[in-house]
Amino acid sequence: MIEDYKYRVYCANMELVKLGLITFTWGNVSAIDRANGLVVIKPSGVSYDTMSPEDMVVIDLEGKIVEGRLKASSDTPTHLVLYNAFPEIGGIAHTHSEFATSWAQVGADIPLLGTTHADYFAGNIPCTRDMTEDEVRGDYERETGNVIVERFSSNFIDPFQIPGVLVKNHGPFTWGKSSAEAVFHAAVLEQVSKIAYFSYTLNSRCSMNAFLADKHYSRKHGTGKYYGQWTDM
Amino acid sequence: MIEDYKYRVYCANMELVKLGLITFTWGNVSAIDRANGLVVIKPSGVSYDTMSPEDMVVIDLEGKIVEGRLKASSDTPTHLVLYNAFPEIGGIAHTHSEFATSWAQVGADIPLLGTTHADYFAGNIPCTRDMTEDEVRGDYERETGNVIVERFSSNFIDPFQIPGVLVKNHGPFTWGKSSAEAVFHAAVLEQVSKIAYFSYTLNSRCSMNAFLADKHYSRKHGTGKYYGQWTDM
Amino acid sequence: MIEDYKYRVYCANMELVKLGLITFTWGNVSAIDRANGLVVIKPSGVSYDTMSPEDMVVIDLEGKIVEGRLKASSDTPTHLVLYNAFPEIGGIAHTHSEFATSWAQVGADIPLLGTTHADYFAGNIPCTRDMTEDEVRGDYERETGNVIVERFSSNFIDPFQIPGVLVKNHGPFTWGKSSAEAVFHAAVLEQVSKIAYFSYTLNSRCSMNAFLADKHYSRKHGTGKYYGQWTDM
Amino acid sequence: MIEDYKYRVYCANMELVKLGLITFTWGNVSAIDRANGLVVIKPSGVSYDTMSPEDMVVIDLEGKIVEGRLKASSDTPTHLVLYNAFPEIGGIAHTHSEFATSWAQVGADIPLLGTTHADYFAGNIPCTRDMTEDEVRGDYERETGNVIVERFSSNFIDPFQIPGVLVKNHGPFTWGKSSAEAVFHAAVLEQVSKIAYFSYTLNSRCSMNAFLADKHYSRKHGTGKYYGQWTDM
Repeated sequence: MIEDYKYRVYCANMELVKLGLITFTWGNVSAIDRANGLVVIKPSGVSYDTMSPEDMVVIDLEGKIVEGRLKASSDTPTHLVLYNAFPEIGGIAHTHSEFATSWAQVGADIPLLGTTHADYFAGNIPCTRDMTEDEVRGDYERETGNVIVERFSSNFIDPFQIPGVLVKNHGPFTWGKSSAEAVFHAAVLEQVSKIAYFSYTLNSRCSMNAFLADKHYSRKHGTGKYYGQWTDM
Repeated sequence: MIEDYKYRVYCANMELVKLGLITFTWGNVSAIDRANGLVVIKPSGVSYDTMSPEDMVVIDLEGKIVEGRLKASSDTPTHLVLYNAFPEIGGIAHTHSEFATSWAQVGADIPLLGTTHADYFAGNIPCTRDMTEDEVRGDYERETGNVIVERFSSNFIDPFQIPGVLVKNHGPFTWGKSSAEAVFHAAVLEQVSKIAYFSYTLNSRCSMNAFLADKHYSRKHGTGKYYGQWTDM
Repeated sequence: MIEDYKYRVYCANMELVKLGLITFTWGNVSAIDRANGLVVIKPSGVSYDTMSPEDMVVIDLEGKIVEGRLKASSDTPTHLVLYNAFPEIGGIAHTHSEFATSWAQVGADIPLLGTTHADYFAGNIPCTRDMTEDEVRGDYERETGNVIVERFSSNFIDPFQIPGVLVKNHGPFTWGKSSAEAVFHAAVLEQVSKIAYFSYTLNSRCSMNAFLADKHYSRKHGTGKYYGQWTDM
Repeated sequence: MIEDYKYRVYCANMELVKLGLITFTWGNVSAIDRANGLVVIKPSGVSYDTMSPEDMVVIDLEGKIVEGRLKASSDTPTHLVLYNAFPEIGGIAHTHSEFATSWAQVGADIPLLGTTHADYFAGNIPCTRDMTEDEVRGDYERETGNVIVERFSSNFIDPFQIPGVLVKNHGPFTWGKSSAEAVFHAAVLEQVSKIAYFSYTLNSRCSMNAFLADKHYSRKHGTGKYYGQWTDM
């Protein structure tokens, strides 16, 4: 069972590379086996060229290593906070992809400007607030998870409808029902960030009507959806 | 006969991928068999990796499925409106290509700034108006076709001389005598959009003399053309 | 003899494709056999996928076809004007490469901002003036050559030290001792245009000291050069 | 022994090509054998397609050729100044990579805007001052090294913590414990420059808290580091 997760998390990490979202080792993907309370995640700072499914690290929801001879990704505590706070998600991806990271460095939400965005994200893609010096000097990676959760809860944003976030001055985290869907959302977010960059630098006052965005989101998601065949991406 | 169309529409869809105009499943190509009043179009949300000519869907001009076991592209009604309004076109392509989509998100016509543009489009590439809430909540994809047609007819734009359009906040549609030419125009439009982006961000007041644009368009098209060999692209 | 030129011109055209400077058929390369007064040039609008050395067209300096079953590039008269005006050049390349074309659409000289530029061009890369309506409606391609020559002669620019130009609203022409060097200069020009674009959009007031530019140009060219081995690029 | 250095310097030069940091011959990598006071460097203006480990040039710290039948890179004196001034470095890389060169042409330090930057550079990446006419007309390549050293010493910047620099109107130099690490830092610098470009053109007033930058730098470097496995990149 857990071997399946290790294989899928390995494949999802490699898919990030294939999609051009990873430079060197800057990124990681995890998945959660909710039935057994186990999280499988990429090891820290290991090259994608030599990585294998057996290198994946298995931990419990408190971060204790259950299986694996390598250290887990240094971002592991962030993943754990998200798995605890968002019970409907099954996988998480983190990258330093170019355009999403640029918006994160600016500290701005990615504005909803087109149907490409609205097909997958039901609103602006939020950016977290500045972390305090205490948060950074304290349990930094866990606090990173906390500012993400804070941004969603204090603004009543549904993490299922907005499956991603920008961490200010850092980069994007995305999630989904599985590690594969988390990676898919990382790719969509990068593409959306890129088109938003070009649009915004052409005219910073561009915008989109909310009812058009709603239409596109709902034709792909929810009970009335009619896009695609009868199975899902 | 219709098998030929299915094969050609399949190839035209795959060509979009090869030209780098498609991310995931975001795009579609169709062709019309005018003699039999049949339209062949890509199925909705199907991966390009596994798609085959047999997956193409055959419909009549009212949208009724004539052949095929998959749902047609959700953008099918837009294609049908264009085939009905523009009797000289034989194929239509729709993409979310990066630069054309950026101009669409800004809601701006692509300005005629150079001979690359003028070689294929006899003027600015128009962008449609905002759709109303009624249009979006109603028969949305058909209304998308209607705002395209409205933009061409109310501005006396000849769809044969301007073989493409931007749908505001969405992306480009292009057309041609065949599905292959529609795809070719999608690639030209993306390249033109890209160069216009770089030009416009260098100096937003750049422009081109109309008589230079006319010269370039007419040396490639119409009775006095002298570009290329004696056959056409 | 002329077969060698046809082969070299064919290779130079294919090199443009390999260097990513060509979209579809938008470009052409020629070479001149000064001893025999013959010019070899790419045929008009022929696909690079099927082109062969035998397709190259041989003309004299008045443009009369000497050998070849295809029409010469529509830009041929521009090439001939340049071969007549600049007796030291042996090859010419024309592309619609993205960044050089963007500067041409803006109608601006490419400013000398760095040593990459100064290593190959001894000053700004000039852009031609607007052509008059008479020039465009008259012998357009020949007049295109004339505005290039005018820009160099009226500004005392040495075409050997500045081996390229932007034609306003059109794109770049470059030249060199051979067709291979003309293509090399087309690639350098595109790279220089790209870096100048990024620099200029970061800060439009950036500049470079003339003595630094002189140093770089002269360490690669002329009698005192000391860059490279004892043979030339 | 020196054969090992030649092989490693050859590989590091080829890695620049693979990483997309090199256009034509514009760049070079060297390494120093501190025990024997020997520097191994790429020959000047030689094509990467035909270069072999035997082409590497071996010189002493005064620049005298010890071994090799080709001329050393014209930037060799710059490398020697850096090896003499920064005793802890083992390798140096120089490129004209697109985004780093753009910042160099602007003459601006690359501002510290995100964790991608802070993971490898403990502060802004400095740009040197304008060189004087005397410096340029004199021993230019040696003076280039001198303005780099001046920028670090007069601003109390530690070259171990900031393993790279922009030379104004020219391009980046990076260094590391080995030629491989110097190349790695060249790639990181280019990626950091690119993301900084996008961020800056979105909002030129973006910034990052110093304590967040410190946290990221120190979790990867120094005694308290906890990123990666127990071996280093």
